[in-house]
Amino acid sequence: MGKYEHIREEALDANLMLPKLNLVLFTFGNVSAVDRDFGVFAIKPSGVPYEDLDVNSMVIVDFEGKTVEGKLRPSSDTKTHAVLYKNWTDIGGIAHTHSTYATAWAQAQKAIPIYGTTHADHLTVDVPCAPPMDDARIAGNYEHETGFQILDYFKSLGLSHREVEMILVGNHAPFTWGKDAKKAVYNSAVLETLAQMAFFTEGINPSAKRMKDTLIKKHFDRKHGKGAYYGQ
Amino acid sequence: MGKYEHIREEALDANLMLPKLNLVLFTFGNVSAVDRDFGVFAIKPSGVPYEDLDVNSMVIVDFEGKTVEGKLRPSSDTKTHAVLYKNWTDIGGIAHTHSTYATAWAQAQKAIPIYGTTHADHLTVDVPCAPPMDDARIAGNYEHETGFQILDYFKSLGLSHREVEMILVGNHAPFTWGKDAKKAVYNSAVLETLAQMAFFTEGINPSAKRMKDTLIKKHFDRKHGKGAYYGQ
Amino acid sequence: MGKYEHIREEALDANLMLPKLNLVLFTFGNVSAVDRDFGVFAIKPSGVPYEDLDVNSMVIVDFEGKTVEGKLRPSSDTKTHAVLYKNWTDIGGIAHTHSTYATAWAQAQKAIPIYGTTHADHLTVDVPCAPPMDDARIAGNYEHETGFQILDYFKSLGLSHREVEMILVGNHAPFTWGKDAKKAVYNSAVLETLAQMAFFTEGINPSAKRMKDTLIKKHFDRKHGKGAYYGQ
Amino acid sequence: MGKYEHIREEALDANLMLPKLNLVLFTFGNVSAVDRDFGVFAIKPSGVPYEDLDVNSMVIVDFEGKTVEGKLRPSSDTKTHAVLYKNWTDIGGIAHTHSTYATAWAQAQKAIPIYGTTHADHLTVDVPCAPPMDDARIAGNYEHETGFQILDYFKSLGLSHREVEMILVGNHAPFTWGKDAKKAVYNSAVLETLAQMAFFTEGINPSAKRMKDTLIKKHFDRKHGKGAYYGQ
Repeated sequence: MGKYEHIREEALDANLMLPKLNLVLFTFGNVSAVDRDFGVFAIKPSGVPYEDLDVNSMVIVDFEGKTVEGKLRPSSDTKTHAVLYKNWTDIGGIAHTHSTYATAWAQAQKAIPIYGTTHADHLTVDVPCAPPMDDARIAGNYEHETGFQILDYFKSLGLSHREVEMILVGNHAPFTWGKDAKKAVYNSAVLETLAQMAFFTEGINPSAKRMKDTLIKKHFDRKHGKGAYYGQ
Repeated sequence: MGKYEHIREEALDANLMLPKLNLVLFTFGNVSAVDRDFGVFAIKPSGVPYEDLDVNSMVIVDFEGKTVEGKLRPSSDTKTHAVLYKNWTDIGGIAHTHSTYATAWAQAQKAIPIYGTTHADHLTVDVPCAPPMDDARIAGNYEHETGFQILDYFKSLGLSHREVEMILVGNHAPFTWGKDAKKAVYNSAVLETLAQMAFFTEGINPSAKRMKDTLIKKHFDRKHGKGAYYGQ
Repeated sequence: MGKYEHIREEALDANLMLPKLNLVLFTFGNVSAVDRDFGVFAIKPSGVPYEDLDVNSMVIVDFEGKTVEGKLRPSSDTKTHAVLYKNWTDIGGIAHTHSTYATAWAQAQKAIPIYGTTHADHLTVDVPCAPPMDDARIAGNYEHETGFQILDYFKSLGLSHREVEMILVGNHAPFTWGKDAKKAVYNSAVLETLAQMAFFTEGINPSAKRMKDTLIKKHFDRKHGKGAYYGQ
Repeated sequence: MGKYEHIREEALDANLMLPKLNLVLFTFGNVSAVDRDFGVFAIKPSGVPYEDLDVNSMVIVDFEGKTVEGKLRPSSDTKTHAVLYKNWTDIGGIAHTHSTYATAWAQAQKAIPIYGTTHADHLTVDVPCAPPMDDARIAGNYEHETGFQILDYFKSLGLSHREVEMILVGNHAPFTWGKDAKKAVYNSAVLETLAQMAFFTEGINPSAKRMKDTLIKKHFDRKHGKGAYYGQ
């Protein structure tokens, strides 16, 4: 058993959650799991169907996006993962999908308003939507720059990646992350649900309002604040 | 076999219906079943995935929301259940979900209009949507107050919990109840369908009208009135 | 084996298609199959879950809606079936569902416009939507009158039940029929699809137009006209 | 084993993907696979349920649409396939569905705007929507003319069938193609997803804009351009 076996397994398990949760079609999407000690992460190979994946097909990549171990080419989004791991030094996993409703919000270039407690149970602000990159960034090292687009937009809004574990990239699709790969995928599924609920909320009431701050804080705190009492 | 075994089983079975009916994602939602003689109810433990639940993981709680038996922490919504059981002395089960369409109506802060016989087969009025709590209630004993918010809103509308077994809590999500836990879950699934149909109805015809009183009464009575002739 | 065994089996098989095709929730919906020689039809018992149905639970009823054989109470919609069988002497099966999109059109009290060939493959006109009954009819023999409401509306539009095998009843839900029970259920599934497509069509283009007559006729004729060349 | 066995198998496998991908109801839809050496293609028989298909039920047809081998009548859309194979000499498979969202766009007579990278990963322009045929074409050899309607519309827009492997036919439904039958079905599933995402995008933001050219080009090139780096 190789020294990267544990992140290969973690990445494989998390990738296999994507089709099970109806978050991907065919080969769309990818998840990675990091090992901070070795400074590498395991990620889905590019363009391989989920049903063909196994532990050995996961590709081990460093934070510059270079393959360290593995015969297959890593996901085309690998450099975005690398940038995020390098700069956000306490995240353990990243997921990227083109899930239908979240992607529709990204295409609409709209942040997802915080309309209810389902949202507030997970984050206290609208799900941010980074604008599409400018032409210089697109022409450059594209997936690398996608990572910087995310970092810059978080900075510009004063958001912490510890408190907000998801973003939409305008005209593209969502990225989510967390303490490990499984949590990153969990966040992708939650985001898809929030995207769906918010779309229907506006359909039912075009002048629906964000929930009030006191209620947002209460719901987030009961799950994540001091004296949190959700879970075991 | 312990003395609470029957409500543990009832609560477990009803909780397991939630993912089967596509009413929950991950650990969202919870169902409880009451034993009026012992003055306790069995409820889902907090934050435990449905596939990990068994009879022993159900938590036995009294009407003040205090754990009577069980090693796990009960659902974070336990006190809402407790308040409803204490005040509505003839209900046997309660269900809480964040089902997509019903939650969208709650987020839109709109009652679900009675547009057709599918609705009238179950209740003769719009599905009520309680407003979000005021800040004093939120800052207080939150889940306890959610119960009172529901009780107060029913009183203010002059509704009977025997005739209307469901409510939306504004910016939050639905609660349903019934003679037992299974019926409470049944009502959650019906509510989700009513929410979906009403949303599409307004999409098809923005000036759709509520059905007329004579037809509402006829449909409700054939299922629930004197001389009801639905079912065996 | 009783003399009604063949229609019991036909009705059972057709009823079991409803949950498989996602056209019903819980005990909603019912299908019947007629035997013209005996002047009776077999229909789902009222309020029994689909998973509990067997050949013996089907109820045999005459064209006045009276039970001829069977221990269970027949569907509450039985008299509507009876009226249609009695008056449309060449239909072999009837299905009634509360399928989501078709019911939304019924609740919106709108006929489903013929927007494309999927629709024209099955009928050459909009799917009719009968208005809700007047109060006299509602107060009378309700399910009996529902049948007459359907017959009267077909007459008022000059429609043939041989060419149009489906209708929406305003504020209620769809009824479909056909040469046998299986075809009636087939039509329920097709109707649900037409309802869904037409709703999305209007969402995409609020000024979408009905397809032109020449194209309607062509598509219908290739399946149903002289020299039809669809199928084996 | 007959000389057409390989395309019978290819067509069968591809046809069976349609219900698995939720792209068809009942007998709707059809896929074909071509053999350029023999100048024939294998296609689904008309009106046969997918669960009843086997290798022998596939019908072998030439580019004039005449049956070369097989006991069953080929799909009613066979001549459309024949025209496309005859004129686009490098395609290997064709798929036709009435998938819900793509058909809704066809019924709305709207091209699907390119709103995001999911779309640009597959084509760099809006998914074209050919207008309905004029009455002369409809009255003529209908399915034959459908093929010419597609060819003519591609020419009028200056599109290449090698770069754009999908089209909507106004008031009808989509056709897709590719290097083989499997790729044609893949394109049908992708198209359905693009149709769904674009519909929701416009629902979220009625003034949503197409993505900019630089980003379109970047995404398409990384999958299909020189130096493409998607896949293995």
